[in-house]
Amino acid sequence: MSIEAVDFFYLSMPKVEDIGDGSQDALVVRVTADGVEGWGECEASPLVSIAAFVTPMSHGACKPVRDVVLGRAIESAYDIAAIHAAVEMECMDLLQAAHTFSGIEMALWDLLGRKLNAPVYELLGYTKVYPKLPYASQLFGDTPQETLLGCRKARDSGYRAVKCGWGPFGRCTLELDRDHLQAAREGIGPDGTLLIDAGQIFREDVDAAARRIEFLEEVNTVWLEEPFLGGAYEAYAALAAKSGNVKLAGGEASHNFHMAQQLIDYGRVGFIQIDCGRIGGIAPAKRAADYAAARGVTYVNHTFTSHLALCASLQPYAGLESHRICEYPFAPKQVAWDMSETHLTPDSNGLVHVPAAPGLGITMSVTGMRKYMVEVEISTHGKVLYRSPVL
Amino acid sequence: MSIEAVDFFYLSMPKVEDIGDGSQDALVVRVTADGVEGWGECEASPLVSIAAFVTPMSHGACKPVRDVVLGRAIESAYDIAAIHAAVEMECMDLLQAAHTFSGIEMALWDLLGRKLNAPVYELLGYTKVYPKLPYASQLFGDTPQETLLGCRKARDSGYRAVKCGWGPFGRCTLELDRDHLQAAREGIGPDGTLLIDAGQIFREDVDAAARRIEFLEEVNTVWLEEPFLGGAYEAYAALAAKSGNVKLAGGEASHNFHMAQQLIDYGRVGFIQIDCGRIGGIAPAKRAADYAAARGVTYVNHTFTSHLALCASLQPYAGLESHRICEYPFAPKQVAWDMSETHLTPDSNGLVHVPAAPGLGITMSVTGMRKYMVEVEISTHGKVLYRSPVL
Repeated sequence: MSIEAVDFFYLSMPKVEDIGDGSQDALVVRVTADGVEGWGECEASPLVSIAAFVTPMSHGACKPVRDVVLGRAIESAYDIAAIHAAVEMECMDLLQAAHTFSGIEMALWDLLGRKLNAPVYELLGYTKVYPKLPYASQLFGDTPQETLLGCRKARDSGYRAVKCGWGPFGRCTLELDRDHLQAAREGIGPDGTLLIDAGQIFREDVDAAARRIEFLEEVNTVWLEEPFLGGAYEAYAALAAKSGNVKLAGGEASHNFHMAQQLIDYGRVGFIQIDCGRIGGIAPAKRAADYAAARGVTYVNHTFTSHLALCASLQPYAGLESHRICEYPFAPKQVAWDMSETHLTPDSNGLVHVPAAPGLGITMSVTGMRKYMVEVEISTHGKVLYRSPVL
Repeated sequence: MSIEAVDFFYLSMPKVEDIGDGSQDALVVRVTADGVEGWGECEASPLVSIAAFVTPMSHGACKPVRDVVLGRAIESAYDIAAIHAAVEMECMDLLQAAHTFSGIEMALWDLLGRKLNAPVYELLGYTKVYPKLPYASQLFGDTPQETLLGCRKARDSGYRAVKCGWGPFGRCTLELDRDHLQAAREGIGPDGTLLIDAGQIFREDVDAAARRIEFLEEVNTVWLEEPFLGGAYEAYAALAAKSGNVKLAGGEASHNFHMAQQLIDYGRVGFIQIDCGRIGGIAPAKRAADYAAARGVTYVNHTFTSHLALCASLQPYAGLESHRICEYPFAPKQVAWDMSETHLTPDSNGLVHVPAAPGLGITMSVTGMRKYMVEVEISTHGKVLYRSPVL
């Protein structure tokens, strides 16, 4: 069979707010081949990823993703790898192509799994899978009291792990940062897993980040996420050398396998966080998981959107028993919930299981998606290059 | 003064061919502040970079570039750095933003130079500048005879350096690769500078690349460019350890300073090639030039489009005397030539001089640009988000 159609559905809340919540919009991708459908999702900025699919060719190594994907054979995992390699070469100078292709690649795995009646993790080679411990991801409150209440709410909702990030952290005084950290620990309780996300606030300033290590250790923080700009490996390695029991985490922005590899080798992170909607899809994420596991680094998904993205993001490390933590969209906006009929809810022990169902194991909701559709039209020279398909 | 307007002009040849010629289209940027204009150019895929300027916000760290740039103060180099830092944080999850901003950043330097009546290189701190030796960049021929004729033509046109790339190299037999290399040397003559560009053909296969080293050495190749995928630093370093007199070159895809730094530190290249239209503009390129110079690595511009891009790309290393080679658009398509009234032609010694004129020192041609304008319209929900401005 060959790829007959790739359709993009840009979904959005009616109003997108200027807050660190990535679940406010989504770019859902549907791939069709020989009557079988597969679904995937690209991370962030739907309009730009659509443009990368249809943009006019600039030259031989800067083609629209469309030209490389449509009509290609899709019979096996090998075909997915071949299509990815072709995109890397023929869309080499089109930066956004990695994000556009990520959603398509997910959809190809979903499609292949449905065709072969196998969960994607089986196609990746896992024969046994393990549940994950979801953490509730939230912003620091404006005050320590708000941070405390937020973490307590997560605990009361059954979460045994919480991540606080962004907000005032690193922007206020050391003392206030310490108060927020203490509040977070108090909120999640003494036995809870506490994770902290600095949101790149220290850019390349190792000393500024290092001054917080003592406070992070006091409250038994498992990881400090993205203290620096994504590519500032020297800064990561310098901080890792003095961060004691607090491991560094990062990697969500990796838009190819090598960036993940580098953050492990040169940045010395203890946790590598991969977003399947950015790294090129599920296969490069699996490669990153294998690479991490072989080096004693723990793989974690990065997922701040839908349960479709969540299901995709669990596949690459579903079979790695000791890589136990997973990011879980704790309080997503309605669009991220409504787009699928099925969801992954934690079991009575608070653990999340990857679905034992063909493909990614998620049933999409056409009715749910329709409510949030953003109609896009792009034209050049007055001729329509792209118009949102009817769902 | 503050940034009042940022206008994009998407120019293209009527027909773009599937060949490795990056001069077939262009995205020119005009920035206006307090009645002063500055011009810049983004590399590759104009439509996608325009979309990144106007795309609806996805969340607080994924804003359209427009929202971060318009209205910002622009009085000094410090302001340019501050705007760049803001784009890095507020467009963090918008991959294409780096390319979009690169052209804007160039235009801001041009504008500032015109306002302060100083060439950009002076604003960067250079008090003396040096001419560069341009190389004629061309594709390998389909046959060794064609390669020979191409290189001979470059020599006959006054070029003392030539680069052959892409085409059959690495895709055919070892013997045929050797014949092409010998032909290139014969064409440029025994004293010419010969550079070879593999166009990432070996992906991560060090052995495949290493088998060509002997042939590259036979014809006294100065550099082997991009043997591997841009992020495959391990492969670069492994080949660099056995490439003898042939230095490795790469870095054109760097979309921030750190990627250039990493290719130097971990990839062990001897030449770092920076495209100001991708790395975030002139300031991060200057930082890469300083970093390279301090480590015995030679900086080279990557420029395959217009003389506006060429002038911008020379600024970061204009004052580095021993970094002597420059990429020069040897036979650009008409659009890349016509868009400016002024051009940088080699002097009687075949050397290129950065203009000693305010800003980037190039006068754009409105008449020339108009001939190639691609009208773009982007709408969401039936409301126009972007329409090409009138030039």
